[in-house]
Amino acid sequence: MHIALLGYGTVGKGVDKICETLDAATIDYIYVRPGKVGDKRFCSDWSTIVSDTSIDTIVECMGGLEPAHTFIADALRAGKNVVSSNKAVIAAHYEEFVTLARKSGAALCIEASVGGGVPWIDALMRLKRIDKPECFSGIMNGTSNFILYTMSSEQKSFEEALAQAQELGYAEADPTADIDGIDIKNKTIISANIAFDISAETDIPTSGIRNITADDLAFFASRHETVKLVGRGVRKGSSYALEVVPQVMPFVGLEAQVPSNFNLLTVTGKTIGELKYYGQGAGQDPTAHAVVQDLLNCFENRVPKYRISKDAVYDPSLLQSTYIVRTTVASPQGAEVIDETYWSYTATAEQAAQMLRDLLAQDPKTFMAAK
Amino acid sequence: MHIALLGYGTVGKGVDKICETLDAATIDYIYVRPGKVGDKRFCSDWSTIVSDTSIDTIVECMGGLEPAHTFIADALRAGKNVVSSNKAVIAAHYEEFVTLARKSGAALCIEASVGGGVPWIDALMRLKRIDKPECFSGIMNGTSNFILYTMSSEQKSFEEALAQAQELGYAEADPTADIDGIDIKNKTIISANIAFDISAETDIPTSGIRNITADDLAFFASRHETVKLVGRGVRKGSSYALEVVPQVMPFVGLEAQVPSNFNLLTVTGKTIGELKYYGQGAGQDPTAHAVVQDLLNCFENRVPKYRISKDAVYDPSLLQSTYIVRTTVASPQGAEVIDETYWSYTATAEQAAQMLRDLLAQDPKTFMAAK
Repeated sequence: MHIALLGYGTVGKGVDKICETLDAATIDYIYVRPGKVGDKRFCSDWSTIVSDTSIDTIVECMGGLEPAHTFIADALRAGKNVVSSNKAVIAAHYEEFVTLARKSGAALCIEASVGGGVPWIDALMRLKRIDKPECFSGIMNGTSNFILYTMSSEQKSFEEALAQAQELGYAEADPTADIDGIDIKNKTIISANIAFDISAETDIPTSGIRNITADDLAFFASRHETVKLVGRGVRKGSSYALEVVPQVMPFVGLEAQVPSNFNLLTVTGKTIGELKYYGQGAGQDPTAHAVVQDLLNCFENRVPKYRISKDAVYDPSLLQSTYIVRTTVASPQGAEVIDETYWSYTATAEQAAQMLRDLLAQDPKTFMAAK
Repeated sequence: MHIALLGYGTVGKGVDKICETLDAATIDYIYVRPGKVGDKRFCSDWSTIVSDTSIDTIVECMGGLEPAHTFIADALRAGKNVVSSNKAVIAAHYEEFVTLARKSGAALCIEASVGGGVPWIDALMRLKRIDKPECFSGIMNGTSNFILYTMSSEQKSFEEALAQAQELGYAEADPTADIDGIDIKNKTIISANIAFDISAETDIPTSGIRNITADDLAFFASRHETVKLVGRGVRKGSSYALEVVPQVMPFVGLEAQVPSNFNLLTVTGKTIGELKYYGQGAGQDPTAHAVVQDLLNCFENRVPKYRISKDAVYDPSLLQSTYIVRTTVASPQGAEVIDETYWSYTATAEQAAQMLRDLLAQDPKTFMAAK
């Protein structure tokens, strides 16, 4: 297998390190920004790489939308297999990539785009051979889980826990994508695409943990509960709904116990029941492991085949929950008062997201979680 | 794919039901005891089945050692793929089956033999493409977990919980294999064979939960701990050790939260870190699902290749723990007294198993768990 690696950051370096230990995989090019030197495989000219017919496989771990989108599309058009760990570009251009791969016969492998080292995409593809997944949910973002876990277990404030995550390299200098649920949104869309054989709606109800406080967690703890930021999806017939939301969990249960920056993803099927996968959702070695698993699948010609049903209907009414809200704004009609600080309101995910936007406009510190 | 199904009990019927929904798999024979009627596929003559060259795949879900052992060996010799959910026969005859399969080129697929619907064997095979698993452990037996869970969550005695398991069909009339760790022993041996590329020692330290009491669980609960019956294995270089033992777990942690008859299995590798798989470890549909996944692998020619290292050395000293003991027998020298009821002793798994045998000879109600 002759590989061009696009991007030489954390994941790219990890892939390079593991590939050195394998006979099957040789990295001939590493695409880097112009001016970067230090490795004879470095190359900043994409046209050289994509037109080199000896290269059969592209590993894209640059992240971001462009030029990743253009490079992946070019590579698939040229019949080169593509392995990508880039959730943003896969979530945004899934249908285009699947169509291009189908046309050229190239493989499109995206295991590392969701769940880091957790073999989640593989799990969904395997399950679908027998069952139609009915629903899935997951703690899919290590940074937000680390923050919530640290707040709960060490009685820290959100700001302290975020600072600790940044010190440890778990959170970026700009943590928006992790704490506002954008990273999980991309992973939820990709999970739904695979689980439900669709090209999912990309504008889904999404809220995060930016406003959660130590007092909120203490309130839930007094009810033997905690909060985890999750992505989830349900399907009923050809309809589906998706949501990213802080979810209230009972202490008794696997989800509530997920520590540090780990991930736990769950899928349910008719014959298999509930399956859960737990592991490191980020980090150099686990994510690179997932990428190299995809490479080995390409090598063994175990190429995933994606279906995109044209009948699929996005139906927000399928996801309905009781939402717990802390805000200084008066509760709407139909809300149930819990105490002087919290009230609850039963709504669809779409309605709740709209309500949260309205509340945040009046009280920017409003926090909402789904029960 | 033309299939002969051996055994038409819970799992066999489940396999038949799922295969009806698939185009790829046709069950032509169902091997049953002589005299059983009601399905035109019923056949009690093994020689007819094994000599029928139109049959490419045997699904063995009879359980037990004979005639399963003979039938599997015959089928592999005849070049027929074998899918088996039978942990006893696989644990006992692994090396023979692997050798026969290698000689004839037939597939040997054993996903359903460990973890029921949990894709554990698949997980180990996948992991090994990149990492050498360093250790594994698992809540691998639904019956014993149901008993411990029911004792803990409903404050029941062992006898009450066992009776409830029997009522619900989770435990056999003779529960010995489940509560004395024999079922987990077989699953631990199979897991070690796959994870460590060995043909494991089959006489491994094994203890169960027959003697655990509500008071024992209350004692551990007072220390924020509970007990789960697990199988575990470690490897260091070419040496390995295995053990089946009731293990003390902190409440905070995924293992302690595994409810009812579910399974949770963990494997650790260098680049992937810790991976955990959770699901239904028994029951008709999940186990049949695992069998049919193996059938689909055969159909897609994704045939597992097992290695058996001849360098492997069983080294009991690799597994050393502090064991907590409740017995009326005086504690040995070196033991640490915890209170008037419990003492602890640090030993290898082999030493602890021998100590437990000695203690049981004097106090048949002795209970021991590993910390």
